Amino acid sequence: MEPLNLTVYNEFIHERQNEFVGKIYPDGIHEAIAAYMRQQPGLQVRTATLDMPEHGLSEEVLASTDVLMWWGHAAHNEVSDEIVDRIQMRVLDGMGLIVLHSGHYSKIFKRMMGTTCGLCWREDHGRERLWVVDPSHPIARGVGQYLELPYTEMYGEHFDVADPDALVFISWFEGGEVFRSGMTWHRGKGRIFYFRPGHETYPIYHNEGILHILANGVRWARFEGNSETVGIGGCFHTEEPLETLSEKEYEAGDLDHPDMG
Amino acid sequence: MEPLNLTVYNEFIHERQNEFVGKIYPDGIHEAIAAYMRQQPGLQVRTATLDMPEHGLSEEVLASTDVLMWWGHAAHNEVSDEIVDRIQMRVLDGMGLIVLHSGHYSKIFKRMMGTTCGLCWREDHGRERLWVVDPSHPIARGVGQYLELPYTEMYGEHFDVADPDALVFISWFEGGEVFRSGMTWHRGKGRIFYFRPGHETYPIYHNEGILHILANGVRWARFEGNSETVGIGGCFHTEEPLETLSEKEYEAGDLDHPDMG
Amino acid sequence: MEPLNLTVYNEFIHERQNEFVGKIYPDGIHEAIAAYMRQQPGLQVRTATLDMPEHGLSEEVLASTDVLMWWGHAAHNEVSDEIVDRIQMRVLDGMGLIVLHSGHYSKIFKRMMGTTCGLCWREDHGRERLWVVDPSHPIARGVGQYLELPYTEMYGEHFDVADPDALVFISWFEGGEVFRSGMTWHRGKGRIFYFRPGHETYPIYHNEGILHILANGVRWARFEGNSETVGIGGCFHTEEPLETLSEKEYEAGDLDHPDMG
Amino acid sequence: MEPLNLTVYNEFIHERQNEFVGKIYPDGIHEAIAAYMRQQPGLQVRTATLDMPEHGLSEEVLASTDVLMWWGHAAHNEVSDEIVDRIQMRVLDGMGLIVLHSGHYSKIFKRMMGTTCGLCWREDHGRERLWVVDPSHPIARGVGQYLELPYTEMYGEHFDVADPDALVFISWFEGGEVFRSGMTWHRGKGRIFYFRPGHETYPIYHNEGILHILANGVRWARFEGNSETVGIGGCFHTEEPLETLSEKEYEAGDLDHPDMG
Repeated sequence: MEPLNLTVYNEFIHERQNEFVGKIYPDGIHEAIAAYMRQQPGLQVRTATLDMPEHGLSEEVLASTDVLMWWGHAAHNEVSDEIVDRIQMRVLDGMGLIVLHSGHYSKIFKRMMGTTCGLCWREDHGRERLWVVDPSHPIARGVGQYLELPYTEMYGEHFDVADPDALVFISWFEGGEVFRSGMTWHRGKGRIFYFRPGHETYPIYHNEGILHILANGVRWARFEGNSETVGIGGCFHTEEPLETLSEKEYEAGDLDHPDMG
Repeated sequence: MEPLNLTVYNEFIHERQNEFVGKIYPDGIHEAIAAYMRQQPGLQVRTATLDMPEHGLSEEVLASTDVLMWWGHAAHNEVSDEIVDRIQMRVLDGMGLIVLHSGHYSKIFKRMMGTTCGLCWREDHGRERLWVVDPSHPIARGVGQYLELPYTEMYGEHFDVADPDALVFISWFEGGEVFRSGMTWHRGKGRIFYFRPGHETYPIYHNEGILHILANGVRWARFEGNSETVGIGGCFHTEEPLETLSEKEYEAGDLDHPDMG
Repeated sequence: MEPLNLTVYNEFIHERQNEFVGKIYPDGIHEAIAAYMRQQPGLQVRTATLDMPEHGLSEEVLASTDVLMWWGHAAHNEVSDEIVDRIQMRVLDGMGLIVLHSGHYSKIFKRMMGTTCGLCWREDHGRERLWVVDPSHPIARGVGQYLELPYTEMYGEHFDVADPDALVFISWFEGGEVFRSGMTWHRGKGRIFYFRPGHETYPIYHNEGILHILANGVRWARFEGNSETVGIGGCFHTEEPLETLSEKEYEAGDLDHPDMG
Repeated sequence: MEPLNLTVYNEFIHERQNEFVGKIYPDGIHEAIAAYMRQQPGLQVRTATLDMPEHGLSEEVLASTDVLMWWGHAAHNEVSDEIVDRIQMRVLDGMGLIVLHSGHYSKIFKRMMGTTCGLCWREDHGRERLWVVDPSHPIARGVGQYLELPYTEMYGEHFDVADPDALVFISWFEGGEVFRSGMTWHRGKGRIFYFRPGHETYPIYHNEGILHILANGVRWARFEGNSETVGIGGCFHTEEPLETLSEKEYEAGDLDHPDMG
């Protein structure tokens, strides 16, 4: 099989501005994730950050990206609308998209969902337990019945997203809340996976269980569909019918025609 | 039950520029539909057009609209982005939205779907037959097994929309194509119904069967859900947990902590 | 609107054999629920129990039942297969079905799902909190953001059911688990609602919040769809095509025919 | 990757009783399909027929089957209920199931769906065109925009099945009908694909396009999910909570307890 080209985007701000966060992710969240992914067979990994030209997401990079992973928190609005348009079109054309934690509020995720993507949240160092609710799903492979995280930021319902194709994980939080933490959608030819765990003040992306799920997600999100289908990217006029049409005498606007009753 | 407030939007262009269309809909497509809806028990009907201030869709009008019906074709791009934002927020807050025919390419529908909403099409006066494929759905009530239209514009797959909650009608076309012609979604608290039949050069909105289905759609699209839920319209910080949290010694960034493995 | 005919089925065993349960539900769970439903406008309520002839679910009763509510626990296997067949056919023909708590393991629910309907459970007097995750849904109307129950039996994932049309409630449990507690499906023309809270040793069906949700469920489950559709209840041979077929020279088995390549 | 074990079941009756059918499939439909599948990389193929002991579907065979393909028409009722139970449990445990054409009316498919699986049909040698409506789906890979079949038996809506996870193909029929011809579901850990084209009097299973789609289906239906999840196959009592429960004074049946309001 061809290698899978993964691009990990991170706005890369907290890590450089906040001492705690910098201790956890000295090279940035993107590099923590990329380091793990580079060890996966068949993956070729690049990273991109907000401050790069075109945020590191040029036409060329996206055209050669099979799956794009997205982390953002402090600077969603600094992402250019033009590049959001570009990403959306690539997703509709088959690029996988994996949205992490606070990326729920990114322009690209809101664009794909059509909703506010709002939720409830609290930083409380509470425990989280992600339960597998769709054991048929490849993203849950090798996870056991649940994954436990000792300290997390809480995200609670209602999470204002479109209903998913598959609900893979539901989180239990020590503080009394629940959350649909792993969900998948497809839009056009592209697959989308949202995965909740995170927050820059916790070493979530050093956790083996989390990284394992993300790697499952990357493999799942790769396009394996039908590349010939039109309709995506525009309205297509089809010149000729596929079947012979019956003869009709209709003229537009002929309200007296017997068939117009 | 309270009256249901329906607002029918039409860009109202073809009817004033094209003689044929003007013969079919002398007062505009919106008034043809509104005339039927005004005869339905419990409906209060207003109309809105592109050339009105704020396209007739002011904050006040939308706030008092239970269901908005949308027809557009020639002037999708003349609809103000600010008003599209406004409509989207009202849908997420519970307003129903019914999108007609060429409205598939409207800003508001593309916004709600997250996709291009592209499709294939051909004006060929061919026959169309809409088959009921979800007989449990209120929108299909009283339709019979199928509805036949003698002359229509063809819309064919692939139709690039988000997968629906319910697929109510599939169309057969004389020229050899099929189309998912009646689909429903919900986004946030609001319900959405797309209904394919139309085209300004056919008297589709004088057809009793079509108007019957649209009236079913209007009644179905009214909000009957939960108005107390937060999450829609923003991210909400919840001050206090609902449960007592266990004591923890975690300090953000403490990678040496035994639980951080 | 016509009155809605509700039939509440209860196996009615624990209440007569267990002193505690008998204190909570002296007339049976069915009568506790029926008493509340009889006060709802437009509802006509009957009850049925296992020990009645045909379990109280004769052809006549089912034919005149709009919505059937089901509670069972100790005697699932004593329900006659013939009556399960009968209920299934009525659901497919449009009767609503509401399955309560331990009814997840009833013959009729397993029949409708095609799965084992297994789950994890523990009687621990723990707290439960049902979060609304689909605020667009009529069953969540008037519930607030969540409903809290002080003492319940725990049901945990994985719950082996078919993916629902709508996931309305997710439960948080004090002991660390989550559960998809309110889900809806449709099968044929009929609507199905599973609602988790219960257990005969808790006064769950005296709780106003629970009864409110059940009444929402009853109203939602009523058939409002298309009664003319065939396909349900059998395979139908259609004598004549709706369109004129092209002439063909095919004879079955003619492998030399040029089109057979 | 491990080889994929495919078992192709055929009741194998028409081919031996009907001369025409015997000319098209001299070794049976199962062998026509198996011959193609044996040429696919990574597939190991066995066949099974109704007249074999246990219909060729012993515990051992099923335990070592990754994907089971099913063709039946004349003898659905001769399939033993015990073996249907066995197949259902294997599907829930992760075995893929592919149901062909008239297999819609098989015991195992009706079992998995919970519905009658009825439809409308007519043998008329009409043309069929299968349109791809989900280009993201691996089963549609390499199909083009549609697949055309010159002569088929017509299957029309309403098709009484559970709503699918994915609707991959919709058929257009020359006689005026439509049909949801390619659909997928999952139940428990197992994946299910129904594919309409067929009929024993047409050489459908010699058609390269059809066989290509079936091979896509086989690869897609293989289990890649979470094997550790419980809930499937039974109700599991969990002895200990995962969290420390608060102390409570509740005693079952204590209706005077202040929290019982």
